[in-house]
Amino acid sequence: MKIGILGTGMVGNTIASKLVALGHEVMMGSRTANNEKAQAWVAQAGARAHAGTFAHAAAFGEMIWVCTAGAGTLEAVHAAGPANLDGKIVVDVTNPLDFSRGMPPRLSVVNDDSLGEQVQRAAPGARVVKGLNTINCNLMVDATRIAGDHDTFVAGNDAEAKARVTEILRRDFGWRHVVDLGDITGARATEMYLPLWLRLYGALGSADFNVHVVRPA
Amino acid sequence: MKIGILGTGMVGNTIASKLVALGHEVMMGSRTANNEKAQAWVAQAGARAHAGTFAHAAAFGEMIWVCTAGAGTLEAVHAAGPANLDGKIVVDVTNPLDFSRGMPPRLSVVNDDSLGEQVQRAAPGARVVKGLNTINCNLMVDATRIAGDHDTFVAGNDAEAKARVTEILRRDFGWRHVVDLGDITGARATEMYLPLWLRLYGALGSADFNVHVVRPA
Repeated sequence: MKIGILGTGMVGNTIASKLVALGHEVMMGSRTANNEKAQAWVAQAGARAHAGTFAHAAAFGEMIWVCTAGAGTLEAVHAAGPANLDGKIVVDVTNPLDFSRGMPPRLSVVNDDSLGEQVQRAAPGARVVKGLNTINCNLMVDATRIAGDHDTFVAGNDAEAKARVTEILRRDFGWRHVVDLGDITGARATEMYLPLWLRLYGALGSADFNVHVVRPA
Repeated sequence: MKIGILGTGMVGNTIASKLVALGHEVMMGSRTANNEKAQAWVAQAGARAHAGTFAHAAAFGEMIWVCTAGAGTLEAVHAAGPANLDGKIVVDVTNPLDFSRGMPPRLSVVNDDSLGEQVQRAAPGARVVKGLNTINCNLMVDATRIAGDHDTFVAGNDAEAKARVTEILRRDFGWRHVVDLGDITGARATEMYLPLWLRLYGALGSADFNVHVVRPA
């Protein structure tokens, strides 16, 4: 499949590399067509790796992954061009973390809205699926780093889009437990989990962790 | 031990009953000395169960559990009288849920503050420990309802108070995993987890669940 990645940071790089390794044609998009990090990724990731602007990547991909820092997510979606996203599955793995007041970051969106919903509103024709935003990127693409049971979450308004993303998570990224949190407003829940993730990161001294939802037998 | 409970709702009732069953003398406090729910609890819970005002319960207890609805927490602490809480361990299990705009509730405190910190500021001499606010009250007092591993969290400025609460959680409430999230600002993390808890509650159709923090072997 042809896949567009918005974002050239660690998350975009990790997801793009995984998708190339799975055999997909992947274009990494950024503000400019000659972004250094995107060029470096192409040089290292091989013949199925491409780079371009956000709009190039959005037009190229049959499916789009939004992997920017939270502060740049909406700008990236606007630059991608909502028309380039029409009808496409758009997987939003971002978090509305605001580092402008120092550490720990605050959430710039809470309660009655979420970055996932903002992405959906910015690209109304897209089939946005919020997912994977509750774990470190290495774990996103390889759930088997943790041997036991643990969970990831999806939320979105399009049931078929969620089912297809869930299939990718299960088959390609190793996720055994994908919990459907309902429509895109479920993004509020997973984004507001970030402060606990950050605190656990501090307590555990490692980003290599996740949670498993457990119930009585 | 003599223990004061602030709050007569399901959470206060469940924790008070558990503490009576463990052999403690427990006074349930409320706005008025003759609160019907507190009287009903005393009638049912036996000779070690008592009722009084918030101030009575706070003066009575060597340890205090704050179990009110979030909207009433600070009023209860003020009515309890900060002087009655001086030097005492105050376990805050509340969440800043605001139901005034309908369901799902919003969080009335986020990001730079938490209800746990507000309780600590309202009773500066108290040794506040935020804990147990990420699970249903039946699970709070009996972690063995879920057979496998699962976690609860504590946060507070007083290390000895946290250690004593952790001991109660482990020995009396059946918790095998109590994660220390650091100082009282850790309450921000566990309180902001509530939207995910609420969404999982909806997805699972039951409040009988929790999360287990898992790491690579």
